[in-house]
Amino acid sequence: MKNTIGSSVALTIFGESHGTAIGAVLDGIAPGIPVDEEFIAHQMGLRKSVGSISTPRREADEVKILSGVFEGKTTGTPITFMIQNQDTKSKDYGELAYKARPGHADYPANMKYHGFQDFRGGGHFSGRITAGIVAAGAVAISALRAKGITIGTHILSCAGVSDRSFGDIPSDIEKLSDAQFAVLDESVKDAMIEKIEAARADGDSVGGKLETAVYGFPAGVGEPWFDTLESVLSHMLFSIPAVKGVEFGDGFGITDMLGSQANDCYRNVDGKVVTSSNHNGGITGGISNGMPLLFRTAVKPTPSIYKEQETIDLNTGENTTLQIKGRHDPAIIHRARVVVDSAAALVLCDQLALRYGTDWLR
Amino acid sequence: MKNTIGSSVALTIFGESHGTAIGAVLDGIAPGIPVDEEFIAHQMGLRKSVGSISTPRREADEVKILSGVFEGKTTGTPITFMIQNQDTKSKDYGELAYKARPGHADYPANMKYHGFQDFRGGGHFSGRITAGIVAAGAVAISALRAKGITIGTHILSCAGVSDRSFGDIPSDIEKLSDAQFAVLDESVKDAMIEKIEAARADGDSVGGKLETAVYGFPAGVGEPWFDTLESVLSHMLFSIPAVKGVEFGDGFGITDMLGSQANDCYRNVDGKVVTSSNHNGGITGGISNGMPLLFRTAVKPTPSIYKEQETIDLNTGENTTLQIKGRHDPAIIHRARVVVDSAAALVLCDQLALRYGTDWLR
Amino acid sequence: MKNTIGSSVALTIFGESHGTAIGAVLDGIAPGIPVDEEFIAHQMGLRKSVGSISTPRREADEVKILSGVFEGKTTGTPITFMIQNQDTKSKDYGELAYKARPGHADYPANMKYHGFQDFRGGGHFSGRITAGIVAAGAVAISALRAKGITIGTHILSCAGVSDRSFGDIPSDIEKLSDAQFAVLDESVKDAMIEKIEAARADGDSVGGKLETAVYGFPAGVGEPWFDTLESVLSHMLFSIPAVKGVEFGDGFGITDMLGSQANDCYRNVDGKVVTSSNHNGGITGGISNGMPLLFRTAVKPTPSIYKEQETIDLNTGENTTLQIKGRHDPAIIHRARVVVDSAAALVLCDQLALRYGTDWLR
Amino acid sequence: MKNTIGSSVALTIFGESHGTAIGAVLDGIAPGIPVDEEFIAHQMGLRKSVGSISTPRREADEVKILSGVFEGKTTGTPITFMIQNQDTKSKDYGELAYKARPGHADYPANMKYHGFQDFRGGGHFSGRITAGIVAAGAVAISALRAKGITIGTHILSCAGVSDRSFGDIPSDIEKLSDAQFAVLDESVKDAMIEKIEAARADGDSVGGKLETAVYGFPAGVGEPWFDTLESVLSHMLFSIPAVKGVEFGDGFGITDMLGSQANDCYRNVDGKVVTSSNHNGGITGGISNGMPLLFRTAVKPTPSIYKEQETIDLNTGENTTLQIKGRHDPAIIHRARVVVDSAAALVLCDQLALRYGTDWLR
Repeated sequence: MKNTIGSSVALTIFGESHGTAIGAVLDGIAPGIPVDEEFIAHQMGLRKSVGSISTPRREADEVKILSGVFEGKTTGTPITFMIQNQDTKSKDYGELAYKARPGHADYPANMKYHGFQDFRGGGHFSGRITAGIVAAGAVAISALRAKGITIGTHILSCAGVSDRSFGDIPSDIEKLSDAQFAVLDESVKDAMIEKIEAARADGDSVGGKLETAVYGFPAGVGEPWFDTLESVLSHMLFSIPAVKGVEFGDGFGITDMLGSQANDCYRNVDGKVVTSSNHNGGITGGISNGMPLLFRTAVKPTPSIYKEQETIDLNTGENTTLQIKGRHDPAIIHRARVVVDSAAALVLCDQLALRYGTDWLR
Repeated sequence: MKNTIGSSVALTIFGESHGTAIGAVLDGIAPGIPVDEEFIAHQMGLRKSVGSISTPRREADEVKILSGVFEGKTTGTPITFMIQNQDTKSKDYGELAYKARPGHADYPANMKYHGFQDFRGGGHFSGRITAGIVAAGAVAISALRAKGITIGTHILSCAGVSDRSFGDIPSDIEKLSDAQFAVLDESVKDAMIEKIEAARADGDSVGGKLETAVYGFPAGVGEPWFDTLESVLSHMLFSIPAVKGVEFGDGFGITDMLGSQANDCYRNVDGKVVTSSNHNGGITGGISNGMPLLFRTAVKPTPSIYKEQETIDLNTGENTTLQIKGRHDPAIIHRARVVVDSAAALVLCDQLALRYGTDWLR
Repeated sequence: MKNTIGSSVALTIFGESHGTAIGAVLDGIAPGIPVDEEFIAHQMGLRKSVGSISTPRREADEVKILSGVFEGKTTGTPITFMIQNQDTKSKDYGELAYKARPGHADYPANMKYHGFQDFRGGGHFSGRITAGIVAAGAVAISALRAKGITIGTHILSCAGVSDRSFGDIPSDIEKLSDAQFAVLDESVKDAMIEKIEAARADGDSVGGKLETAVYGFPAGVGEPWFDTLESVLSHMLFSIPAVKGVEFGDGFGITDMLGSQANDCYRNVDGKVVTSSNHNGGITGGISNGMPLLFRTAVKPTPSIYKEQETIDLNTGENTTLQIKGRHDPAIIHRARVVVDSAAALVLCDQLALRYGTDWLR
Repeated sequence: MKNTIGSSVALTIFGESHGTAIGAVLDGIAPGIPVDEEFIAHQMGLRKSVGSISTPRREADEVKILSGVFEGKTTGTPITFMIQNQDTKSKDYGELAYKARPGHADYPANMKYHGFQDFRGGGHFSGRITAGIVAAGAVAISALRAKGITIGTHILSCAGVSDRSFGDIPSDIEKLSDAQFAVLDESVKDAMIEKIEAARADGDSVGGKLETAVYGFPAGVGEPWFDTLESVLSHMLFSIPAVKGVEFGDGFGITDMLGSQANDCYRNVDGKVVTSSNHNGGITGGISNGMPLLFRTAVKPTPSIYKEQETIDLNTGENTTLQIKGRHDPAIIHRARVVVDSAAALVLCDQLALRYGTDWLR
């Protein structure tokens, strides 16, 4: 599948950065789930560009629901979210029609689409396409929350500045839910923003790491092969633009431990099975073990920078240089976190519907 | 999908560690590809347990092809690989029927399969099931090689000891093809093995990182959403037991770079488009850019250790302790690398068949 | 998959009869294919209700393309077709909120969606949803035509009145392309329309059979299992509302023949392999043999009729009677034929892209 | 997907008529279901060639279970069924290596597999491959039966001789369960067998129609698009060799009715919702309505006949004649009926698991 992901709960996305509209079709979500348009708008707001640390492109990002909601509740049939593009300045992008931006998809896209792709503003490769994921994800997040499953993502590091890791997970998730710049330790926020603004001032960009926790997810969901929970989550996460790494639990860090350190021992605490540590991020053998799911996502620095770069001319194949004009994000890490929440929520809804049936989420 | 992965080229695996047989069905591989049973045996040999750094369980791992090969060539219809289990000592596993091994799937499997799973030797969760992937992968690797696409994986680190990274990729891949303990810098091998043996002596285990390179993969393969090359590779890689992290190019390391450092600039060198660096691991926008594919896989320490561990009794739910007897691997990193090669080759064959049609690989 | 069908070329549909908009997302169509909006409008026109033999509901059915087309050509990324609903008279449908219409999906939908479905005008079950298939199908039909593959469907029978079967297939297909009431023998048209009008006058409805031919489809496409050409075509065709039977070649009629009569013998005619008969409808062993594809589709009489019918009250479960008001089609067979053409074209594009790669259609 | 079908419950088949072994992998069946090897053998027996109305090829068809069953119950992981080929007389097939049998897949297979397919005995196209479906289907049938869902198929017509249609469905299904030649009206059996023997004597073959009923299937299962119950059942049924038509309820016969005749009116009978007729075969809007599922399958006459036929030489492309030697079935309709039962049961298990979750069937 290409622009469709999921099996029982499936998402299809569409659109180009400077086209008429972008959006998503969310299929298979259980009937009878309240759809809170304010919450959708709230989530869209978390993805928005704001202040000096984001692109000056300002989009209303008003989500119009075309289908699948009746009298304020899901019908069980496809929910279509449409977001009209408005603030498009395509004239800025003239030179980009034939010069491949380093770090971007222009050159491989040209090899795949033979020059017919809509190059304006990154076209279908644009981070803007994630708006559809956030709109659909809002419904998924609401549905999970009604079942006691919450999800939160924070900026674990940005441009080398680190946030603290998750502590008390339910309250940390709660804390993150409204944050425009999501860190757990508020004291690191200014240092991160300073780094982003410095990069912007220099015509450059920065990246970062996101850390996500899911609380209340039941044990016994996922498959040993090939749809491990890690597999299906990473499949989705790696389709978010700029993501170059995904790790669960202690991830790459676990490789230096001994087995006796890495193993999470089961304990019966007041009649509930828990593990005394969570190095495996709540997943063993591909299946949830009832502990919080924990994963981290590596987001590369935004490839669109003002600095002059070497590249080739796609028409002639000759070497040339390129100075990208237009409006860019010096960082997307703060905007990406709600995309990760949304994407993960959609995957988890699918897994739960596969495991417990299509009615379970209502 | 559960035990089936892929779309145009698809793999289905089956079997339990102590059952009658394990194996795999490889479907959709182009007709007319020579099937070299010696090469299959060679690849199976790379996965075998050897010496003191692996489990004492010794399996002939003879692969029997039941279908899909006629007169030494693929027919285009499903190829079935069967490997009979022989050296099973199920009596060793009695206590494991009801005590959940930490770090293993026992507890989540119990929540999913309600106690009906075959617990012996890890059952369907056993690393042994990867033998089917290696058998099928051998056909995929051969098919790719005939098209000029080679693949190699080495132990980038083991128990804290590091190998050098890839240098001249084609010759490095060549060098790795026969190595039973695959490192690029032979001088680090002894230190790694020493660490493994020390862990074994201590009833413990170690993990490591694998690094993989794919050479000769054409530009223009993969999707922007949701089947990015990273998505489909990570989906497969995370289903290999013990894998807890996957990163492409510089992965998590790229998050501390500036955009101007991380971007790979396109250059025309003697009429060929290349990038002057490869921080993105040959993939931008989810699509191959013609540079070598590069990724790393985090393998946790083997969870089966001799040391006594705390756990619960699955029948009573009560706290207890467990000392795992039986035969274990103090490390699997050296055996896992051919699994990664095989798994990746299968995914790439699928992508190529989707992009260029079902005849392309022959 | 639910509202998504296809693998390399995939269609997702959405919408409800009386919702904001209906539409479809067509993914995976090759880049660079001209999109002729006039041809789309032409095809939409063939599906429209006209005259006294259709519902008085009149929809402009203007197709708005939201994505995937750039400078008049496909980009290779998802094409979104949106059709706004306009002439909705929901007040007509009050009683239908709780009385299950016989022959319709109301009762099973209630068992599936627990009453949350949008019941107005049939909601997501409405034949109106096929408008999205027709819009997307227009692009598929154009793409096939550019490769020399044409497709045509006629009303083989309606209310017991029969048309002649296909004769010279290319010219018959050509003849059908603009027909609002598609029969091959114009002389039977009036008798069919008379029957439809008689049913309408009586508050009743009629059904019919459609016959489809595909010309120029290459040999060697399809799978022995489980994606036979018959399987993938019937999967799509049976999702068109009111379809209750699908047969290929002589279909049910072949069951009374002897093998020596039913077998299509291969002949070399001027260097081209053909069969001297086509009882198998161009498909043997699930794979195309180069002869025209031939199939027939059974369309039941429209279930919405004015006549009073017995049914139950969905709220109380009690027996009651129902007289459906609102606007109905006394027949849909003449409108369904372009849906069958479109649906089949989409399936065939998918099969061709799987077989020959994603670039083949351009 | 090719040789894999289904989503939550999936079947993968493999093998060639004269290869080492054929078989199937059944994935996703709920854990804890008793696997009755005697019942599997019983079902295999119903598919066997017997007496003078079948091929003289006699296969033990002993099913060996390689995985997925532990202590007599399903584990929830893939169940692998292997059937070794024994009575293969490949020398009979020499001429068939290069002459395309009319009505068979030889020519289209050659266009797809470029001559690398295993032509012996039909290879992967052979009806013999359905043995794997019957073995897997036996587990599905058992699982359904434990939930009160039964299924039965009879020979509605053979060579023009007709059986009566279903009457009291539960007892008719019961009656069919052990019948080697499954008719409801025993008095038509001899006439059918006479026709088959006459065809055999004449070196010819006959076809027929099968009729299937499913009793006890719950309402509310299936999708409006594109996975209607009709779609998923027909997808499977059309992959059974020789099937050329599928119809539900009154199928093609419904097209001549008026809406007022074809509509099945809902009635509350003793607190249970039923319909007073079942022209729609238990499915409206793609979803089950709680009435028995009813469908018919058209099976063409066996294409392998002794009579000389015209064809081409696949190597030279020249016209030639062919007289097929070897062992053939003058009819397969009596053997196909258990294949239809099995195939349908597998599809229904998948639908139930998708609807109610992976635990529902246990």
